[in-house]
Amino acid sequence: MTTSQVIGIDFGGTSVKLAVVEGETLLTDIHRIPTQEFESPDHLIERISRVVAEIREQHPSVSAIGVGVPGAVNFSTGMTYNLTNVKGWSEVPLRDILAEESGLPTVIDNDANCMAYAEWKFGAARGCSHAVCVTLGTGVGGGLILNNQLFRGANYAAGEIGQMSIDLNGVPGPYGNTGALERYIGNRQITEMAAEIYRQRGEEVPAVHTPEALAEMAGKGDPVALEVWTKVATCLGFSLMSVVYLLNPEAIVIGGGVSEAGALLFDPLKKTLKNSLTAECFDHLRIVPARFGNTAGMIGSSAMASELC
Amino acid sequence: MTTSQVIGIDFGGTSVKLAVVEGETLLTDIHRIPTQEFESPDHLIERISRVVAEIREQHPSVSAIGVGVPGAVNFSTGMTYNLTNVKGWSEVPLRDILAEESGLPTVIDNDANCMAYAEWKFGAARGCSHAVCVTLGTGVGGGLILNNQLFRGANYAAGEIGQMSIDLNGVPGPYGNTGALERYIGNRQITEMAAEIYRQRGEEVPAVHTPEALAEMAGKGDPVALEVWTKVATCLGFSLMSVVYLLNPEAIVIGGGVSEAGALLFDPLKKTLKNSLTAECFDHLRIVPARFGNTAGMIGSSAMASELC
Repeated sequence: MTTSQVIGIDFGGTSVKLAVVEGETLLTDIHRIPTQEFESPDHLIERISRVVAEIREQHPSVSAIGVGVPGAVNFSTGMTYNLTNVKGWSEVPLRDILAEESGLPTVIDNDANCMAYAEWKFGAARGCSHAVCVTLGTGVGGGLILNNQLFRGANYAAGEIGQMSIDLNGVPGPYGNTGALERYIGNRQITEMAAEIYRQRGEEVPAVHTPEALAEMAGKGDPVALEVWTKVATCLGFSLMSVVYLLNPEAIVIGGGVSEAGALLFDPLKKTLKNSLTAECFDHLRIVPARFGNTAGMIGSSAMASELC
Repeated sequence: MTTSQVIGIDFGGTSVKLAVVEGETLLTDIHRIPTQEFESPDHLIERISRVVAEIREQHPSVSAIGVGVPGAVNFSTGMTYNLTNVKGWSEVPLRDILAEESGLPTVIDNDANCMAYAEWKFGAARGCSHAVCVTLGTGVGGGLILNNQLFRGANYAAGEIGQMSIDLNGVPGPYGNTGALERYIGNRQITEMAAEIYRQRGEEVPAVHTPEALAEMAGKGDPVALEVWTKVATCLGFSLMSVVYLLNPEAIVIGGGVSEAGALLFDPLKKTLKNSLTAECFDHLRIVPARFGNTAGMIGSSAMASELC
């Protein structure tokens, strides 16, 4: 196991977070750059490079940079595409810009892959040869550990669990992929699902009915909130059932905001999987929450970067 | 590339087929043992061993045995389970029995994995780092080539494309897996689908409406048969769309009897995939027929066995 000190960068839609990371430990506070305050990608990247330089003054032993981004990345070329929520971002060779500015070896991957890598190296999937990692949030992302390595696919596009279909007669998907999981259990869809059920029952829709609020309400026994979580777990469960039949993993690791619903999500999810998988596939399968929350992107990208050292 | 001479055995429900194989070439005629004529697994295996011994008298240079079976196999222990269509077969250590009788190194895997291996080594997936192979027949099987190796999963149960769900509100699956692909496009289901559509239209159901007959009828423009193939392609396409979002392969290889419908199946299948995948995933994806037909099991298992030599 390498123990290099690395700058981990988690490129989020709200803020770009940076910290010095060693293994699974953040050695510094998290520096936050508000993503939306910059007029262009150039200005934002300039600012990131400046923060990287400042951090290195304090931590001269830093030997690499790892970056996780919320969108498509070509892991091999370091080119990033279509970062949602970032004004004017299209094709940006982010890895090479940061590497050139800093003179440090730099690695870049999408945030779901970074999460999977963090969980596999240090978290809930540690020791697994084959694990499926899912992040639940605005969208649904995924990262795969197969045969003891992160599996990226032919065009670095593997792991898109959120785009898998659970219903060929279902709701429209973003790419013509009718029934896309993401369109059932993304944060916004969960909120809409709850509003719809309240209305169908002729009940007033609570002012706040985000996933977090629904988790709290379900904890207090609110029947609509409970119904929402059962539906979310069923949709997720059907998707994961198909993933398990295809990949026969040892573990499914679930992270992201929605996963914080805990037993409300995990109990019906496990039930769905138990009732739809062969004993062969289910009996050896662990279905577990992610260990890392908001730091997974920094820890995972740093772990990838430390392998460059 | 090894060029050993190996006995390839394809253990089918109708007959057990044996031949001497070198690379992709069968060096002998195929010996057929009628599977159903034996009272017990013991008698059948005894007969197989005798044929192996006879073959070796003619081909003393044979240096290993490869076996493909239509059911669950533990690749590591060589134990076979629940071979459908074989009377009294439950847990049988087939690999070790054949190895002991013959004194030859022996390898055993399920038939879909053997097919994938044959196509990857010598056929339509040759040169691919990542390929998804599907066999269409009584059931729907699958085998995965990922990162330049056959991917078997944690319990040697990976690749079960036929058990993936295409509709969480769909028809019952064999293991509680509602919407299982196999229950839409297995041979029997295709035949039933056709009968149902003829009846709905108030037309007489043709005496023979098997997949082969339906392919011929569709070729002549029969609208029901054409509708059947479009539906089959749509169901298969939805399942493969999900597989592609998850694994981002370079190629999808389709074999088995139903695939012989050719353009009737491949044209609407490609259309479904083009209309539901991102350009990133679709543009580099080849969707191709398998090269090997009934010999895939013998060639694939032989290729695995030749690596033992």
